[in-house]
Amino acid sequence: MLHSAHGQAFLRSALTPESPRLSTAEVLAWLAERRAATRVNVRPIAFDQLRQWHFDAATGNLRHDSGRFFSIEGIRVSTSFGDTPQWDQPILNQPEVGFLGILAKPIDGVLHFLMQAKIEPGNVGAVQLSPTLQATKSNFTQVHGGRRPLFLDWFLSPKPGAVLLDQLQSEQGARFLRKRNRNIILLAEGEVELPAEGGENFRWLTLGQITSLLRHDNVVNMDTRTVISGIPFGQFSSEVIDFYELLQPLGDRSHRAALFRSALEGERGLHSLDEIISWMTRLKAQYELNVQSIPLREVSGWERTADAIRHTSGRFFSVIAAEVDIEGREVQRWTQPLLKPSSEGLCAFILKEIDGLLHVLVQAKVEPGNLDILEMAPTVQTITGNYRDTGPYSRPAFLDYVLDTLANHRDRVRYEVLQSEEGGRFWHEQNRNVLIASGDELPIAVPEHFRWMTLNQLKTFIRFNNYLNIQARSLLSTISFV
Amino acid sequence: MLHSAHGQAFLRSALTPESPRLSTAEVLAWLAERRAATRVNVRPIAFDQLRQWHFDAATGNLRHDSGRFFSIEGIRVSTSFGDTPQWDQPILNQPEVGFLGILAKPIDGVLHFLMQAKIEPGNVGAVQLSPTLQATKSNFTQVHGGRRPLFLDWFLSPKPGAVLLDQLQSEQGARFLRKRNRNIILLAEGEVELPAEGGENFRWLTLGQITSLLRHDNVVNMDTRTVISGIPFGQFSSEVIDFYELLQPLGDRSHRAALFRSALEGERGLHSLDEIISWMTRLKAQYELNVQSIPLREVSGWERTADAIRHTSGRFFSVIAAEVDIEGREVQRWTQPLLKPSSEGLCAFILKEIDGLLHVLVQAKVEPGNLDILEMAPTVQTITGNYRDTGPYSRPAFLDYVLDTLANHRDRVRYEVLQSEEGGRFWHEQNRNVLIASGDELPIAVPEHFRWMTLNQLKTFIRFNNYLNIQARSLLSTISFV
Repeated sequence: MLHSAHGQAFLRSALTPESPRLSTAEVLAWLAERRAATRVNVRPIAFDQLRQWHFDAATGNLRHDSGRFFSIEGIRVSTSFGDTPQWDQPILNQPEVGFLGILAKPIDGVLHFLMQAKIEPGNVGAVQLSPTLQATKSNFTQVHGGRRPLFLDWFLSPKPGAVLLDQLQSEQGARFLRKRNRNIILLAEGEVELPAEGGENFRWLTLGQITSLLRHDNVVNMDTRTVISGIPFGQFSSEVIDFYELLQPLGDRSHRAALFRSALEGERGLHSLDEIISWMTRLKAQYELNVQSIPLREVSGWERTADAIRHTSGRFFSVIAAEVDIEGREVQRWTQPLLKPSSEGLCAFILKEIDGLLHVLVQAKVEPGNLDILEMAPTVQTITGNYRDTGPYSRPAFLDYVLDTLANHRDRVRYEVLQSEEGGRFWHEQNRNVLIASGDELPIAVPEHFRWMTLNQLKTFIRFNNYLNIQARSLLSTISFV
Repeated sequence: MLHSAHGQAFLRSALTPESPRLSTAEVLAWLAERRAATRVNVRPIAFDQLRQWHFDAATGNLRHDSGRFFSIEGIRVSTSFGDTPQWDQPILNQPEVGFLGILAKPIDGVLHFLMQAKIEPGNVGAVQLSPTLQATKSNFTQVHGGRRPLFLDWFLSPKPGAVLLDQLQSEQGARFLRKRNRNIILLAEGEVELPAEGGENFRWLTLGQITSLLRHDNVVNMDTRTVISGIPFGQFSSEVIDFYELLQPLGDRSHRAALFRSALEGERGLHSLDEIISWMTRLKAQYELNVQSIPLREVSGWERTADAIRHTSGRFFSVIAAEVDIEGREVQRWTQPLLKPSSEGLCAFILKEIDGLLHVLVQAKVEPGNLDILEMAPTVQTITGNYRDTGPYSRPAFLDYVLDTLANHRDRVRYEVLQSEEGGRFWHEQNRNVLIASGDELPIAVPEHFRWMTLNQLKTFIRFNNYLNIQARSLLSTISFV
């Protein structure tokens, strides 16, 4: 059964553009006020100035003295996919599964989500809109002796009936070794008390409001985007949607109706769900991905200086060290490694209306940190290289089509916003998130690694874990009904 | 959409107890004739008598000289699940994805499956009913210089519309390191010619006929069981099933109707699909499983003699070497390693009727070779230890309940048959496959690692890969509508 018991409550919230208690303008003002109220200073330091972090004598891996949190290690990758058969790279290893949790409750009959204005050192703008709870296992078992995360107890042992969404989802497969987080939304029963200290960092928003805020650069953080991308709206028959549209015209009908039907109709699509499963099965059987852990000191093609580990070509990313100072209600200071991208990336989905349903062009992509060889990715995903100058690497399929559309066919650009990757690990990493509507100039026939899918099909795959990568989920979260 | 386009054709075949062209008695006679026509002689040899296999000088791993097929390596396991926090063991590493493929075609309006009487060295009875095609990548790229497998070309590039089922499914997580095979059923268009040489090994059977044959010990091989376990019948509303039952009473209504409804109803169950996903998410977030590859020579607790690698306790399994002679139409002779179990195992599902639907008691089980920490397993699964004498290990939940039922409450034993594991790797490994109906003596409330699920829910999870382990799928395949 793919019917979702809570689909209708989610859908109503997605169709509500503003909370009756708090306008989106007020949310933006609150975020600006939170940004002003805290001073965040992050400055690069040399590795030997890191406190509680060290390079392991035997392996050269960069680790926390406690052995917890995360470490930076090496991998040696070989694959029969793509045109780079073998490479070494540093990778983040964080074997713990953390919480990305959102509390929800109905306000005036519409489901609202408790969002947090959270500071993270790598964030563009320092403060972004985050889930109610963002906690690694090291956080909530208080390895670092810090304070207990707010709202943690709600998530540690929820009542089964209160769980609206609970999925294990992957993070960046090019940066993390098989990292996953528990994406969870809980229906809060009874009063939710905001804490006396820190309560000013929390606000209740509708889902439509969160997707509206996604139209602003670097406002909604990655963890929020992954959680809301998994929200199911259930499945409805064509007849129900016909009736709904009859009652409530959807503005620009041709575009909006195709979007609405793509999200809610479960039985149609260019390909059936089984055909898509067969496509994934065939590709997973066909391609090999071998990932071998190696000591960071043996990673070839990368060099370590006093303050960075970088690729000899200058491409991809570098590992740096940072001193973080946060001055607000209290002073916090720590040091940590961060990953710094070499260039801005591009994540784009190409859209197409097929048989009255919006379809999304999905790429099957191998990334070394994937749990299961390949995941569904955006049509174009270039977060690890300079997409304007691909250098010695072949240009990804559809990249030039997307760049040409962005430059010359602005009427077909449905969405173009800069979104940040996780600010706890990545230094000012922002990627251009783009949705492009295609017309007859782009044929339905696509290369073997691509498939057109409906939004409802993508939501189904998200439910079963490790099908969509985080860039695909992040882009999906930006598709709004309001 | 969980509707299956081919569900109705599969269902009709499942409800057809015998092929109109070939009775089940005739199938059994044919298998007996095939067994008589071939002489299979497998005898244990010392490791140094293996040809084309060697122990690697550096690691002690047992490998084929070509580097292909499979190897026997070591792993060091640590986990927070269960009461053995750390152990070493040998494990089969076979990184290739092979085909387990069945050709299907309608005969007299009912879908039939092309089954093969196939010899494998480890099989009890030497010949068992196998898929049309069983081929590793080494087989079909002909590394061993053998002949091209029959029917291979059908499966290498099938037309998309001909694919009835195409799933990547796991094998034994206690024995194989993340091994999976591609389980595939193709609708054959046009005439399927049986080859002049070898055609006597193939017959067309209905799905009902295959499940009838599953009532006999060691007749249907493991590869057939895993492929047919994934067959979807689609989902029907209660009203449709009411109407069907009205037209066609199902014999012993109370038991049969609960089975039928459990398989076909998609919207009911003690737990919703989302609740079960949440349960799996929570357990995967809670438990850690670390599996480190180590040289076979460093595996502690195991000893290597001239002709076996065995655990010092004598428990679990041993690695042996065998010389295989097959005399039939032609003579084949080769040597290979095999895994030999120390004792017969037990795989049991406990069943219970809840709200008019048959429910199956599923266990979440960590096994070291699992791709994703834990998979859904039978209520009781003891394939690696002596279940009558568990020695120093704690007795698994529900084991004593199952043994007591088998001994003293035969009226509640719905199924009890010996089934073989894969005869190409395991020497005479057979496990007692058991289905037990429970009544009021067993409460609905179960421990945290267990959940009651309907057959339809289990079929849904099978579709999305790596949810059900092979023992669970094998047991599911034995549940018959005829």
